[in-house]
Amino acid sequence: MLERIRIVLIGTSHPGNIGGTARAMHNMGLSDLALVAPRCEPLTADTVSRASGADHIVHGARTVETLEQAVGDCTLVVGASARSRTLPWPMITPRTLGERLPTELADPAARVALVFGREDSGLTNAELQRCHAHVHIPTNPDFSSLNLAAAVQVLAYECRQAWLGQQASEPAEAAPPQPLASHEELERYFEHLERTLIGIGFHDPAMPRQLMARLRRFTLRARPERMELNILRGILTATEQQAERPPGDDARGQ
Amino acid sequence: MLERIRIVLIGTSHPGNIGGTARAMHNMGLSDLALVAPRCEPLTADTVSRASGADHIVHGARTVETLEQAVGDCTLVVGASARSRTLPWPMITPRTLGERLPTELADPAARVALVFGREDSGLTNAELQRCHAHVHIPTNPDFSSLNLAAAVQVLAYECRQAWLGQQASEPAEAAPPQPLASHEELERYFEHLERTLIGIGFHDPAMPRQLMARLRRFTLRARPERMELNILRGILTATEQQAERPPGDDARGQ
Repeated sequence: MLERIRIVLIGTSHPGNIGGTARAMHNMGLSDLALVAPRCEPLTADTVSRASGADHIVHGARTVETLEQAVGDCTLVVGASARSRTLPWPMITPRTLGERLPTELADPAARVALVFGREDSGLTNAELQRCHAHVHIPTNPDFSSLNLAAAVQVLAYECRQAWLGQQASEPAEAAPPQPLASHEELERYFEHLERTLIGIGFHDPAMPRQLMARLRRFTLRARPERMELNILRGILTATEQQAERPPGDDARGQ
Repeated sequence: MLERIRIVLIGTSHPGNIGGTARAMHNMGLSDLALVAPRCEPLTADTVSRASGADHIVHGARTVETLEQAVGDCTLVVGASARSRTLPWPMITPRTLGERLPTELADPAARVALVFGREDSGLTNAELQRCHAHVHIPTNPDFSSLNLAAAVQVLAYECRQAWLGQQASEPAEAAPPQPLASHEELERYFEHLERTLIGIGFHDPAMPRQLMARLRRFTLRARPERMELNILRGILTATEQQAERPPGDDARGQ
């Protein structure tokens, strides 16, 4: 289970935090690290010093340019968020996240990404809206900004707790779950949806009014299966054909 | 409760770890720090940098020569231990420690000390034997040595969880949830959806193929809010207008 949990760091500025993250991950048995557009050289003397023997995690990390590249194959994407945002998103505690992991990862093809933002400014709203849920580590409201590696440590600890809890219990015999849509499939769907809504005159990107954010939140909350997403995309294609059909064509007349 | 939990660091070598400890403590609402025979200058530029705004905790720390001086007034002393020792001692997990805290600290005169050893060698047997219990943070057996500040972070997090759990017995102050769509509103939406899907030629009631059942299951799983359902109905209305628009009309030209 732990090998299918990916830690994603976006725009990290301090190599020491990458090293500290690697150490926290290896301590808790995690190994899959992705760096999105780091704002520093990831592998420096500081990295190796803070990694304290876990720098192989940094050597093995994938460095990519966008969040999509880092989480495209993931079935659950959870963003670490310190603040509540204008548009509230499903918010879970680290403990609830841990408790959900055995179920989320029951399908051997499932993958979970835990996404952490920049040291100074966290995740952007656009990044947060690409997540199924946000996890907030409870902190002192007067001093809420955790060190990046410390935040990874807390969530990695809850991952290990969940894994240990699972080892201690009987193997579950739940029905095999339907495959969930991956992050990449969901993003293709949202692009298709936005294109269609523009096509039928319902959505004006110049006056977005949080329309796409609301539709994202609604859809992500349902955790669509791959087959459901295929149906929704079929509906979009049929809708586009209506918007584009030549004058005089009868909608129902195939 | 949190103000009566003391973090005790014995023989710390790196000022950065003292700073990281101060940050982790302040993040979780702890404030009482004691340094026993530190092997470095506690307050350096590294301390302040890693403390990241929590260096007042280090300024307020008591520096003493012996463990006894640091924990003399404590009613429960728990030592952080990576290893199992020759003489087995009561061993608890971080979670069990947290769960015990409200009871341990019920008496306003009670105080708890969490004692952490040297970066390189931990606590001595003599120090461990001065503790009521040992707490072991579960780790990867192949890489079990946590960074000092990371270990403080995990235990401080469990302290805060325990405190929050205690607060939760009092009435919660959660944000008022958005009103969910009623059953009746949902049924009107599903009728509208089916009508629209027939209108665009996507759905044939004579060959239903469980289409509406699948869309119902997906939608109900998300527990739509009333406002979300209004958006979805708006999209259906715009879609119907496309399907019904007179020949030669431009979809985008309102």
